[in-house]
Amino acid sequence: MNILITGGTGFIGSQLARFLLEKGDKVTLFDIEPNLSLIGNIKDKANVVRGDLACLSDVLSAIKKHDAELISHTGALLSARSEKYPVAAFRANLVGTFNVLEVARLLEVGTVMFASSIATFGEGVSNPVPNEAPQKPMTMYGVTKVASERLGEYYYRRFGVNFRALRLPSIVGLGRGSGGASAYSTLMIEKPARGESYQVYVSQDSKIPILYIKDALRAFMGLQEANETKLRRRVYNIGGISPTAGEIAESVRIYVKNSGLKFSPDKTMQEIVDGWPEALDETRAREEWGWSLKYNLNEMVEDFIKEVRSFGIRGR
Amino acid sequence: MNILITGGTGFIGSQLARFLLEKGDKVTLFDIEPNLSLIGNIKDKANVVRGDLACLSDVLSAIKKHDAELISHTGALLSARSEKYPVAAFRANLVGTFNVLEVARLLEVGTVMFASSIATFGEGVSNPVPNEAPQKPMTMYGVTKVASERLGEYYYRRFGVNFRALRLPSIVGLGRGSGGASAYSTLMIEKPARGESYQVYVSQDSKIPILYIKDALRAFMGLQEANETKLRRRVYNIGGISPTAGEIAESVRIYVKNSGLKFSPDKTMQEIVDGWPEALDETRAREEWGWSLKYNLNEMVEDFIKEVRSFGIRGR
Amino acid sequence: MNILITGGTGFIGSQLARFLLEKGDKVTLFDIEPNLSLIGNIKDKANVVRGDLACLSDVLSAIKKHDAELISHTGALLSARSEKYPVAAFRANLVGTFNVLEVARLLEVGTVMFASSIATFGEGVSNPVPNEAPQKPMTMYGVTKVASERLGEYYYRRFGVNFRALRLPSIVGLGRGSGGASAYSTLMIEKPARGESYQVYVSQDSKIPILYIKDALRAFMGLQEANETKLRRRVYNIGGISPTAGEIAESVRIYVKNSGLKFSPDKTMQEIVDGWPEALDETRAREEWGWSLKYNLNEMVEDFIKEVRSFGIRGR
Amino acid sequence: MNILITGGTGFIGSQLARFLLEKGDKVTLFDIEPNLSLIGNIKDKANVVRGDLACLSDVLSAIKKHDAELISHTGALLSARSEKYPVAAFRANLVGTFNVLEVARLLEVGTVMFASSIATFGEGVSNPVPNEAPQKPMTMYGVTKVASERLGEYYYRRFGVNFRALRLPSIVGLGRGSGGASAYSTLMIEKPARGESYQVYVSQDSKIPILYIKDALRAFMGLQEANETKLRRRVYNIGGISPTAGEIAESVRIYVKNSGLKFSPDKTMQEIVDGWPEALDETRAREEWGWSLKYNLNEMVEDFIKEVRSFGIRGR
Repeated sequence: MNILITGGTGFIGSQLARFLLEKGDKVTLFDIEPNLSLIGNIKDKANVVRGDLACLSDVLSAIKKHDAELISHTGALLSARSEKYPVAAFRANLVGTFNVLEVARLLEVGTVMFASSIATFGEGVSNPVPNEAPQKPMTMYGVTKVASERLGEYYYRRFGVNFRALRLPSIVGLGRGSGGASAYSTLMIEKPARGESYQVYVSQDSKIPILYIKDALRAFMGLQEANETKLRRRVYNIGGISPTAGEIAESVRIYVKNSGLKFSPDKTMQEIVDGWPEALDETRAREEWGWSLKYNLNEMVEDFIKEVRSFGIRGR
Repeated sequence: MNILITGGTGFIGSQLARFLLEKGDKVTLFDIEPNLSLIGNIKDKANVVRGDLACLSDVLSAIKKHDAELISHTGALLSARSEKYPVAAFRANLVGTFNVLEVARLLEVGTVMFASSIATFGEGVSNPVPNEAPQKPMTMYGVTKVASERLGEYYYRRFGVNFRALRLPSIVGLGRGSGGASAYSTLMIEKPARGESYQVYVSQDSKIPILYIKDALRAFMGLQEANETKLRRRVYNIGGISPTAGEIAESVRIYVKNSGLKFSPDKTMQEIVDGWPEALDETRAREEWGWSLKYNLNEMVEDFIKEVRSFGIRGR
Repeated sequence: MNILITGGTGFIGSQLARFLLEKGDKVTLFDIEPNLSLIGNIKDKANVVRGDLACLSDVLSAIKKHDAELISHTGALLSARSEKYPVAAFRANLVGTFNVLEVARLLEVGTVMFASSIATFGEGVSNPVPNEAPQKPMTMYGVTKVASERLGEYYYRRFGVNFRALRLPSIVGLGRGSGGASAYSTLMIEKPARGESYQVYVSQDSKIPILYIKDALRAFMGLQEANETKLRRRVYNIGGISPTAGEIAESVRIYVKNSGLKFSPDKTMQEIVDGWPEALDETRAREEWGWSLKYNLNEMVEDFIKEVRSFGIRGR
Repeated sequence: MNILITGGTGFIGSQLARFLLEKGDKVTLFDIEPNLSLIGNIKDKANVVRGDLACLSDVLSAIKKHDAELISHTGALLSARSEKYPVAAFRANLVGTFNVLEVARLLEVGTVMFASSIATFGEGVSNPVPNEAPQKPMTMYGVTKVASERLGEYYYRRFGVNFRALRLPSIVGLGRGSGGASAYSTLMIEKPARGESYQVYVSQDSKIPILYIKDALRAFMGLQEANETKLRRRVYNIGGISPTAGEIAESVRIYVKNSGLKFSPDKTMQEIVDGWPEALDETRAREEWGWSLKYNLNEMVEDFIKEVRSFGIRGR
């Protein structure tokens, strides 16, 4: 299958690319500024295309040239950068999704898989957040993602574009980097695995939903391959697990004796993290296309530590 | 006060302009193709500017040239046209709102009043629809309006743009025209007032929320003048009244003996109307800024009939 | 052949459509606000599509849906409107041409025929203006047309898009309308043919190059069908004839006894007309693809008068 | 004076910034991806703003926030990158210039200085190329620059924007880098100054016009400060000097004994260079605002070598 991944050289995009290549698909990595550091061992097996999501012509050229049958649309300005540059976020994330959907319509590309986010939920939702809760995001990132969900649903209903989306929690894994307020959940595991000490900037009882990257890829595949007749909606919460920071620390100490983890909460970061939902209700994903988690907390920590030790900083 | 009205020569925009001029404000009417027929008696008192909402430069030029202190953003491709031309709707309605907000930020225009819609609600909402219900619209018009609400909230929170919005039901009044599936609620009154017969294309028990244009203008003014400290949100449901079509017919017969109204339901139209919520819960507007309806069904019908008889087809 | 005409319901576009339909081609008329008045007798034989040249998606949708093999790109804000709304002209005319060329590249549409203009020449050119004279236009219309020529040449050289363009003088014919400073050349014939009097707003010795619409269509066809190996450039001057206004008046009097023509020069109009070149050198078009004029002044006047009398105000 | 420089962290932009700061101006450096390597010693004295020229809002925000009274518009995708990504070049270079002019109009910024290029001339021009020669560029870069010149002239004539432009030849200096076919003229001096050998990829008799960066800055200042009443046009050729590659090599050997220069022409590069004009006629710049060159070949070579030895790879 020919698959084009927007944001193809980013964290999720590059991991997805690696996974699809191993599965035997052909992949094209579309990125505004292709970052070769995350695609080290696959860059010769994939097509790498420079292009701007905000430019319909760039998106269309890439899809057409490489005959993509499926678009995995993971590209976006991330949360912190969207806050800093909301105009750029409007263009890349929201006009970008519109362009992806337009190309899917115009060139009759079958399927658009979309990475939405827990950040589409804002204040006043119940815990765990139901799949159909009101979406009043607090950030520009969240605003562009929720608008993208609605556009995707419309293109499905009106034009038959097979739009399917996951609302992902914070993803943990190699290559995630240190940006954003949820980075602690990755760094609390990665740093000890490298033998480095790490000061956790939230309190021990802080709790957000997290998902191991390998489970995130399983979720993408699960929804991508789901039977259309079973789906009663286009967008699904994926809840992952919701350990406290303290529980993560404990788990790490099982595998790394001197973990070097210290808690030293930062007020600003703590407030951001406290503003997020503690858990997402993923019942709809389980019921309608059989989603289930593979990695519990200890399994995630163990596997991640192995990955770090095998592949170094950037992953494979 | 200098006020710029987008969609200024449309139904709501032109009525709002007339109202504001009488109040003593200066108004600028911004429209893609200024339609002089609805602004007959005010066109020499207002500035009329041709411009495209999708073009930031056009919006900015108009605001700057006429020193607007407040933008009443009523301009949009309406519901039927948005379904026909979704790309144009994305540009005019969604990019258009973004441009209005950007100009408000860039030129420090104090306030943006926005006309949102009951069409932002889709399936699966309770009746009457609560102010904070999930918004999963079925139409492109609804998608662009819900995304506009979220953008406005963000510009308020992040940049201090005083964004305030009303979710309006179907508006009844002179100049509304015959487009869209809710037109029957206006035409059932207007036609008999002109002595014309009319075939109502929905059944007698059909029920949608409607609002008389004079109440719509009162709602605009009420929210515009509301005390900031009382507002706990930026977007408010306005419910109006929810008579059945049969009840409207009865009311008309009080004022027009031979109303010439016949019911002859059309399947397609009936289905669209049946898909809408029957009522909007406007409690938040009542509590937070003192909204209350002035015209009940009979008062609306009586006043509208008088207007038709005084001013002819297009209004004053 | 499937041909899409941008500006398809305008003066040149609609005449070209009629001509192509008679020849047996299939035509699609693309227009921002399709004007049915000029396509009265062909509107059921052609596809009519609403779309915005400034919107790549609109252009692409239309071309793709109707499988166009050739684009006749005559659409543009005309000269006077471009002066009034230069931002809109930038978008429709220049971004519009870019979009047409992009679609030709992306969908591998063979040929783009482009209507350029004498208005691309400004001050300081010799008379008659050589095909390769410097182009320093005085108007926004001219600026957008000259930039379009260069883009077209580039797309030919770089991507093999078969871009071919005519630099047309003022076109005379039914449906041209009364806009623009060169309108007198049409109205001096059309008005007398209808038995109406007409005040010519330039002096008798005013001279600009003009071309009968039927010759303009012949030029389009001539260049469209020209042998690629003979072409040594992509853009050709078409000179037409350069009678003085006095000479046009004399010719009209041959066919209409009491022509009702009076000369009453207007200072502003006269200055605009005096700023234009008196003649274009069309040698390259003659040499490279055998262009020759069919209608001299008297033949044009005679034929045009017959058309007016047969078809009324708007043409057929 | 408050000056905003587009492309402010690029080669010319950063050198101009340094020059203006020394003169006592305040500068804002606008760049899509600010490159700190070229602004090492000035980055704390200047405002650095990330923004996209293709985004009107970004340009406007930056100009407004920093109260720019003059825009030095040097930002553009350069020649090689424009050939590779013509759509991006259309947006950044052509829409970018339009946005700069629009902001100058909307915010009444007095002056726009523009860096145009010898690349606006194509085949068939006489040597040296007159200031008013036809402009039929062969590259996308040239197309966007020539269209920008016409837009600037129009904004001057129509809106009084004080647009002034230089058509620059290949600029020689520290920080120019190795991109583009004219790079040899810089590298033939820079590499020997560092004690590195260099293979010149053109023949000894190759000749293009070049200009030392210090003279380029003098040209910018000269035109910026020129008396408006003396200017009879808005765009001026700057010719610089036109030594052959062999003559450059001879000059270098005066200052670096073992220059390590070898000639080893590359066919592709040679053809590109042979396609360029050998000299630009700069008479108009001399006559109308007193332009004169300061650095002849030997002076340029000597000064450049000193700079390299004082400041290392990236300049100060």
